[in-house]
Amino acid sequence: MPKLLLAGTVAYDSLRTPQGERPRILGGSALHAAVAASILLRPVNLLSVVGGDFETEHLAFLQKRGVDLRGLKTIKAGRTFAWRGFYEKDMNTAHTVQTELNVLAQFDPALPPEYLDNDFIFLGNIDPALQTKVLAQLPARKFAALDTMNYWIASQREDLLKAINAADLLFVNDAEIRQLTGEDNLLRAARMLLTGRLRYVIIKKGEHGAMLISGKQIAVAPSMPLDEIIDPTGAGDSFAGGFMSYVVERGVNWDTLRAALVYATIVASFNVQGFGCERLAEITQADLDERLKVFREITRIN
Amino acid sequence: MPKLLLAGTVAYDSLRTPQGERPRILGGSALHAAVAASILLRPVNLLSVVGGDFETEHLAFLQKRGVDLRGLKTIKAGRTFAWRGFYEKDMNTAHTVQTELNVLAQFDPALPPEYLDNDFIFLGNIDPALQTKVLAQLPARKFAALDTMNYWIASQREDLLKAINAADLLFVNDAEIRQLTGEDNLLRAARMLLTGRLRYVIIKKGEHGAMLISGKQIAVAPSMPLDEIIDPTGAGDSFAGGFMSYVVERGVNWDTLRAALVYATIVASFNVQGFGCERLAEITQADLDERLKVFREITRIN
Repeated sequence: MPKLLLAGTVAYDSLRTPQGERPRILGGSALHAAVAASILLRPVNLLSVVGGDFETEHLAFLQKRGVDLRGLKTIKAGRTFAWRGFYEKDMNTAHTVQTELNVLAQFDPALPPEYLDNDFIFLGNIDPALQTKVLAQLPARKFAALDTMNYWIASQREDLLKAINAADLLFVNDAEIRQLTGEDNLLRAARMLLTGRLRYVIIKKGEHGAMLISGKQIAVAPSMPLDEIIDPTGAGDSFAGGFMSYVVERGVNWDTLRAALVYATIVASFNVQGFGCERLAEITQADLDERLKVFREITRIN
Repeated sequence: MPKLLLAGTVAYDSLRTPQGERPRILGGSALHAAVAASILLRPVNLLSVVGGDFETEHLAFLQKRGVDLRGLKTIKAGRTFAWRGFYEKDMNTAHTVQTELNVLAQFDPALPPEYLDNDFIFLGNIDPALQTKVLAQLPARKFAALDTMNYWIASQREDLLKAINAADLLFVNDAEIRQLTGEDNLLRAARMLLTGRLRYVIIKKGEHGAMLISGKQIAVAPSMPLDEIIDPTGAGDSFAGGFMSYVVERGVNWDTLRAALVYATIVASFNVQGFGCERLAEITQADLDERLKVFREITRIN
């Protein structure tokens, strides 16, 4: 069975949305991706770092979900990466109040020996130089996907382009790809990035769905219409984690990637229906299948 | 055969987009809708007004497309409604430079006797009091759809709500329905409007596709991915005109309405590939069918 590695941040998020607030709940790019991936696939391997303040119950939560923690380094003298933010009525935009890097500032993403045969890699949002360091340790990998954010596009563009060109697939949102390429048209922007090693771009458009673009083909999926959104934090990471788990299970080809796009859409739709990963942690494959059935009906082309 | 009436504006548009500019080309809500509807259905009936400056070649163009002009009033002493505007790189937002109402200010939408048996009605964007006047003349109509814009929501809210509640279907974009209802969630906003006579809401999201919502059901369609957009003017009107022509051909039920949503998406995708209705005026049913095939493949859920 192929092995999936999820690298990135584990965080304590303090969130406020129009639906309420939560202090210090589990968050971070690798965490959300791991919780999502572990619905379909167990075990999954986590590569990240936490501080001495990381709760035992949170370690237990992850272990119980089949998240392998040998790659989760604990720096006892430090504190876990923490993000404080809020959303206005327009849930598409996160407003940051405070970011404490804490142990993330010293993170050396050295893989434990047991992870060196991992063949499917998700590099969640983190410093692109660290993303490159992870990939450099996995020369025989089969498929690597990378996510990023506006901060790195603005501050470490060269490092980011290097990391992107070592990956097979890029997850990026519409505003980010426009910022990265200077091209407003999403198809053309994606094609500008597909000139090197990178083979696929997935443009995430939040409530407007997602597009998968290769050099030759396109697939689009709307998002699942929902009449209540509790917290959009981690939607993109759970999308990516769900996507990767599906690809590990089914293999890398155009048809499985486009099916994974839909699977990821359904996973992310559950993620936003609770704070942090609360909702996603409750659901089963049967819940996903049931919503997928509804989604098929809603999006069916006669 | 049922008869389709398209009421609204006929305009001379002077446009600038990142792709170029055009002075005084054919535009207006009823015009774009009629050009779109006449691909599938001929004749279609136009209810609007123009001035003495309206070109003979434009009358000939419409007549050749099977657009019945008995409802197109000419006020010889006046000038045709004129709009001047431009689009920045973000083609989703039209910036108005100048609006000259001209003959529109005196428009009395009295139906010619030949139109009194029209059973499918599209009320394009125009003063909602005029939309209500049109519907009042058609008590035996089968299906009426209405479009509007932010200007009327802000300035004539009561008249607009009255017109909406005399219609069966509302075409509205995402920003407009939020403005109209004060509700950010699109599903809930639509359901707020579905409490009276109105049975369906179509929320147009431009490049992000469209949603059809009834009291019980939902259908969503992404837009056709395009690598070049020439001019978005009239996209919504051509969408509505294409939608209505399909519904006239196939009848009013959930399955035909959801298929019409997809048909309309394809029609609108051609509309934005030329200035005004230039591109739409060239295409045939075969062109639509071919693109529909590509669209099915792009949006297929495995």
